[in-house]
Amino acid sequence: MNEKKLVMIGCGTVGQGLLEIIKDKTPNIKLIAISDKLKGSLIDPKGIDIPYMLGILDNDGKVDDYDKASDKAITGLDAIETIKKSNGDIMAEMTYTDIETGEPATSHIKAALKQGMHVTTSNKGPAALYYTKLQKLASDNGVKLFIEGTVMSGTPIFNLARECFAGSKITEVSGILNGTTNYILSKMENEGWDYKDALKKAQELGYAEADPTADVEGHDALAKVVILSNCILGGNIKPEDVPCEGINNITLEDVKEAAENGMRYKLLGSTKIEENKITASVKPVKLELSNPLAGVGGATNALTFKTDLLGEVTIQGPGAGKIETGYSIFVDIISILNHE
Amino acid sequence: MNEKKLVMIGCGTVGQGLLEIIKDKTPNIKLIAISDKLKGSLIDPKGIDIPYMLGILDNDGKVDDYDKASDKAITGLDAIETIKKSNGDIMAEMTYTDIETGEPATSHIKAALKQGMHVTTSNKGPAALYYTKLQKLASDNGVKLFIEGTVMSGTPIFNLARECFAGSKITEVSGILNGTTNYILSKMENEGWDYKDALKKAQELGYAEADPTADVEGHDALAKVVILSNCILGGNIKPEDVPCEGINNITLEDVKEAAENGMRYKLLGSTKIEENKITASVKPVKLELSNPLAGVGGATNALTFKTDLLGEVTIQGPGAGKIETGYSIFVDIISILNHE
Repeated sequence: MNEKKLVMIGCGTVGQGLLEIIKDKTPNIKLIAISDKLKGSLIDPKGIDIPYMLGILDNDGKVDDYDKASDKAITGLDAIETIKKSNGDIMAEMTYTDIETGEPATSHIKAALKQGMHVTTSNKGPAALYYTKLQKLASDNGVKLFIEGTVMSGTPIFNLARECFAGSKITEVSGILNGTTNYILSKMENEGWDYKDALKKAQELGYAEADPTADVEGHDALAKVVILSNCILGGNIKPEDVPCEGINNITLEDVKEAAENGMRYKLLGSTKIEENKITASVKPVKLELSNPLAGVGGATNALTFKTDLLGEVTIQGPGAGKIETGYSIFVDIISILNHE
Repeated sequence: MNEKKLVMIGCGTVGQGLLEIIKDKTPNIKLIAISDKLKGSLIDPKGIDIPYMLGILDNDGKVDDYDKASDKAITGLDAIETIKKSNGDIMAEMTYTDIETGEPATSHIKAALKQGMHVTTSNKGPAALYYTKLQKLASDNGVKLFIEGTVMSGTPIFNLARECFAGSKITEVSGILNGTTNYILSKMENEGWDYKDALKKAQELGYAEADPTADVEGHDALAKVVILSNCILGGNIKPEDVPCEGINNITLEDVKEAAENGMRYKLLGSTKIEENKITASVKPVKLELSNPLAGVGGATNALTFKTDLLGEVTIQGPGAGKIETGYSIFVDIISILNHE
């Protein structure tokens, strides 16, 4: 099998996580282009020296500081031009998520698919807003669009559904899709902290952003529920179709009262399909302690699949992280290579 | 892609589970042979009518009672002859497990691999005793040997490791691999029953055999630990290499004392690889309640994978069942079709 040529769009945390993995694991690919809005761009058809590039980036250098390029190299292009001129086989889209517009990632993905490139992305924007259209574009161009990293980083969700539940019908998926809110709820119950103190600690630890709205009001989980609905259940819903309630109105008293009754609050994102109709929601739910999702503590994520032939199967693993999300891109690349 | 010809060896609970699935799901395969020690055998190159055969078996009929065979059909052969004369593409080995000898399943699998047939099996005997040799034989003959059903029925374990952790190094697997003992321990803790009463209830519910030795002394979990060691960690160990302790010496007092200290007993099967050396065990372990395996109650199974790129990922699902184990064979067949 010939080496496949990889193009990276976005070289922040996830992109650098991917580079660290490729450096050690040497799959059958050649990195030929990187474009990043802040760090510049480089196409080198002879291949980019990954450890050397990582050395530059680790020292706060830029992509176009790379001084080992061949005489065929091109710098200074924007992302779309990089995609069009790269002649790559696989494009990894790892720019920052804009959940309102899905841009610029959606345009990057469209450009790559139209060029006949396979695409993998960890970007929730295009997956939540345009998955069905983008998948059709991929199919029309005879290429793959994989999105493992959009939900629970590299913990297998879409690969699991595709490869491990093949031939089985998935009727419902439900789970803990946001680590920040799960951390807050765990601390409220286990340490007796009130909501504000738990949120403050989550911010100190870097789980929650300075503006924690997307986490605590459920919007982050909502995007993932929409992606699961459309990619796994075959729906075609939009974020505005899904009722969404966060944990910001859950009090310490609510948590204590649930615990006294042998229950535990979790922020659940859920979607099911019945008679071809998707019903989805994000909301705090009181679970029996015997529910596999009830035991999921801290910033960990978990998802329960209901299937016709296996009943319920739950997978629990990391929901974020530089290497964990880099791995989601890496495993998608391996799947693409295996499907060739 | 041409239809692949399927040969079933063993048509008890798992085989009939598989037939029920194929009947509804119509994958790209044609069932051309069935051989069962008690129910007789049939080869029909024109294909066997699955709903009709299921009707016969459901009424306690035999395979050779089938009266819709073509004029090319052959009956009365034993399993090895059926494999050799079938001209099949895929053989599903679903005979009863003999964990001491691995026979007759091992001979069936060897015969099929030597004929150039892909093999899938749910039989723990050959997988625990001869996995490394059989995998080499498969590789030498350019065919696949898949064993999803040998551990946790159709809950993805080997497919998960192969497809979803591809490119990641798995260094340890540890979990609850026996439903009967997990049921007993759950009842001791939750209901305050002593060991004997909990075992009796497990027998009444059909979880435990009349002779429960294989479950409660840990031998069933041991076989699975050996399979995981050799198939997932790439070891080559034998059952006698693994220290094995069951739950038969765990008292209600032990369970209560653990609970008072915020701990919970689980029978864990574990194996890890360090510096190319496998260390494996089966024994009761007191877990912190925050451990993902601690929350696994009743007859459910679960397994935690430690990986270099994702940290810990835990999967929880059914460990047994007619349809669940039939599905393990079905999903292996789909993987074989996808790898063609």
